[in-house]
Amino acid sequence: MRTPPAVTVMAEATGAKRKREGSEESAEPPGGDGGSFPLAELCVRRVLRESARDKAIFLHGQVNGASGDAKDAVVILEKTPFQEEMISDLLKKHTRLKLQMSNDIYSTYHLYPPPQLSEIKTTVVYPATEKHLQKYLRQEVYLIRETGEDYKNVTLPFIQSQSFSIQWVYNILEKTAEADRIVHENPDSSNGFVLIPDFKWNQKQLDDLYLIAICHRRGIKSLRDLTAEHLPLLRNILQEGKEAILKRFGVAGSQLRIYLHYQPSYFHLHVHFTALSYDAPGCSVERAHLLADVIDNLELDPQYYQKRTLTFALRADEALLKKFQEAGKA
Amino acid sequence: MRTPPAVTVMAEATGAKRKREGSEESAEPPGGDGGSFPLAELCVRRVLRESARDKAIFLHGQVNGASGDAKDAVVILEKTPFQEEMISDLLKKHTRLKLQMSNDIYSTYHLYPPPQLSEIKTTVVYPATEKHLQKYLRQEVYLIRETGEDYKNVTLPFIQSQSFSIQWVYNILEKTAEADRIVHENPDSSNGFVLIPDFKWNQKQLDDLYLIAICHRRGIKSLRDLTAEHLPLLRNILQEGKEAILKRFGVAGSQLRIYLHYQPSYFHLHVHFTALSYDAPGCSVERAHLLADVIDNLELDPQYYQKRTLTFALRADEALLKKFQEAGKA
Repeated sequence: MRTPPAVTVMAEATGAKRKREGSEESAEPPGGDGGSFPLAELCVRRVLRESARDKAIFLHGQVNGASGDAKDAVVILEKTPFQEEMISDLLKKHTRLKLQMSNDIYSTYHLYPPPQLSEIKTTVVYPATEKHLQKYLRQEVYLIRETGEDYKNVTLPFIQSQSFSIQWVYNILEKTAEADRIVHENPDSSNGFVLIPDFKWNQKQLDDLYLIAICHRRGIKSLRDLTAEHLPLLRNILQEGKEAILKRFGVAGSQLRIYLHYQPSYFHLHVHFTALSYDAPGCSVERAHLLADVIDNLELDPQYYQKRTLTFALRADEALLKKFQEAGKA
Repeated sequence: MRTPPAVTVMAEATGAKRKREGSEESAEPPGGDGGSFPLAELCVRRVLRESARDKAIFLHGQVNGASGDAKDAVVILEKTPFQEEMISDLLKKHTRLKLQMSNDIYSTYHLYPPPQLSEIKTTVVYPATEKHLQKYLRQEVYLIRETGEDYKNVTLPFIQSQSFSIQWVYNILEKTAEADRIVHENPDSSNGFVLIPDFKWNQKQLDDLYLIAICHRRGIKSLRDLTAEHLPLLRNILQEGKEAILKRFGVAGSQLRIYLHYQPSYFHLHVHFTALSYDAPGCSVERAHLLADVIDNLELDPQYYQKRTLTFALRADEALLKKFQEAGKA
C-alpha cells in the first residue's frame, strides 16, 4: 500500500487540493442554483483540521436543503499567496497598522488590508458524505520512542499480523508495471535496486524533484532490519542514485536529500531522493534518516539499528498506537 | 549571527522570525520615533524572496531618513493563520464572494474579508545592512558533510573569525528585555535555562506552538561543543520544558518535537520546542537533531559530537560554503 505518510497528512491535504473520492452520491450543483453556495447560511459544526503554516482551515458545516433537512458541507478556507504587483497598494492602502513589539532594529506590526487586497480561496464540497468529513478530519499525532525491545515486542508482531500488499513494488522490480519510468537499475539481486520517479513528482520542474530507490532484495522490512551486511547495497544506492540523477536531471548529489523513513509507509526497503531546496513532505527529523548517516552508523556498529531507540509519530487512529498504549509505552 | 538555514531558509524566515544578526550597527528605534515605521513611505526596490506555501514575501525597500538619504529596510509580510473564533464572522461578514469554478459537488470561490478579519504580520528590519539583504535573498543550497576534523579546521576558525552579536540573547537571560514573555526559568547558572515563545509564534493558536529554551551557561556554541558534561543541562531542558508547556499551554510532551539545529542560527546553545503536528520550518532531517537522540548519543559516547560527521545545508552566498570549497570539501 502506498499509504500517505502519517505525519505529513496535514500538509499534503492543504492547498485546497480537490480530492474526488465519494463524488458518486450527487451530481447536484452546489446550492442547487448553478453555483452560488449559501456561505452566510452555513452553520459551522466543527473545525476538521487547520494548518497554521499553510494558513488554511477545514470546516464541517451544515446548511438547510430545500426540504428543510440539514445537509453536510466541507468548507476549506485558505489565504492566498502575495501577488507582487499588489505590494505597493498593500503598504499604502492598509486600513490600520498596529505596533506589536520593537527591539533594536527589529519591529513587528499588525497590518489590516482592505478587502480587495486580502482574498481567501474558498473550496466547498457540498453535499459532503461521511467519507469526506473523515478524510479532512484532523488526527492528533503522538511521538513514540521505540527501543529495540519495543520493536521486538510491539512493532514487529504488529507488522507481521498485518497483510499489507506490496504487489505494486514487485510489479516495478519485475518490470510488469512502470518499466518505462525506470531512471536507473542495478540488477544485482542482493545489492541492486531500481530508481524511479515518485508519484508525487510530475517531472515538469526540478524544484520538487522526488525519486525512490527500491532494492531488489526482498525481506528487508525497514531500517530496523539493516546490519553491516547491507552496507554494499546502501552504498550502491547512495552512489549510483546520485550519479543517475545528475546524468538524467542535471541535479548534483550535493543538492539532494537522500533518506529513509522510519516508520516507512510500506515494508520493503526503499530510499527517498528529494531536491534539497524542496521542503518535501516526510523529511522532518522525527521520520527521516539520512542514508549517509545510516551508513556511518552501521560502519560504527553493525547492530546499531537493532539496539537503537528510534522516534516516530503515529496518528490517533493508527492501530500501532493502540498496541503501544496497551503495552504501556505511549 | 542568526544565519538562516540553507534549505529551510524560505520557510524559516517566515513567520516574521526576528533575525538579530548584525544589530551592532544601530540601536536607533525603528523609524526613530519609538516604534512607528513609515510603511506607506517605503519604496519597494525588489522582492528578495517569496513563499507561496507560507503566504509570505520578503521585500527590500528604502525610506528617506531624517537627513534625506535613502536607508535600506527589509520588510517581511506574512498572512496569519485562521483563528477559530473568527470563522463565523468571516463567513457572514465578507464583503464579496465570487464563484471561480463549479464541478459536481466541488466548487471554489474568492472571498474578500473585511480588514479586521484579515491581518498581515509585518516585520521590519530598519535600518538594514547589506548582510540583512543578502540573508533574505533567495539562494541555491548545498549539502555539507562535516567531519569532526572539518569542524576543527574549517568551521570553528570561521565562527571565531566572525563577530556575531548575540546581545539580544543576553538581554533575555538578564531580564533586560522580554522578561514578561518568559514561560519558565531554571535559574541555575550551569544547568539552568529560560523558556520563551519564539517570535514566529503569535500565541493565538496552539497549532503552530513554538518555544525556545536558551541555556544560562555561556560558551556552548552548538551541538559540536556538547559532551557528557552537559547531560544535566540537556535533561533539565527536556524534562522541565515539557512540564512547563503542559502546564501553561496544555500540550503534552508526546505532542512536541524538541530539537537542536546544526548549524544553529546563533552560537549560544538553544533548543526548539514545536507542536508535532506543525510542519515547522527548520525541522527537516538535514538540520534538526532530536534532543532525546542527542542525550542518547552523549550517554553512549561522551565525545560523540566531537567525532561524528554532521550534515547541514549552506546557501550559495554563505561565507562558510566558500571556506569548505577552498578546503576542497564541498
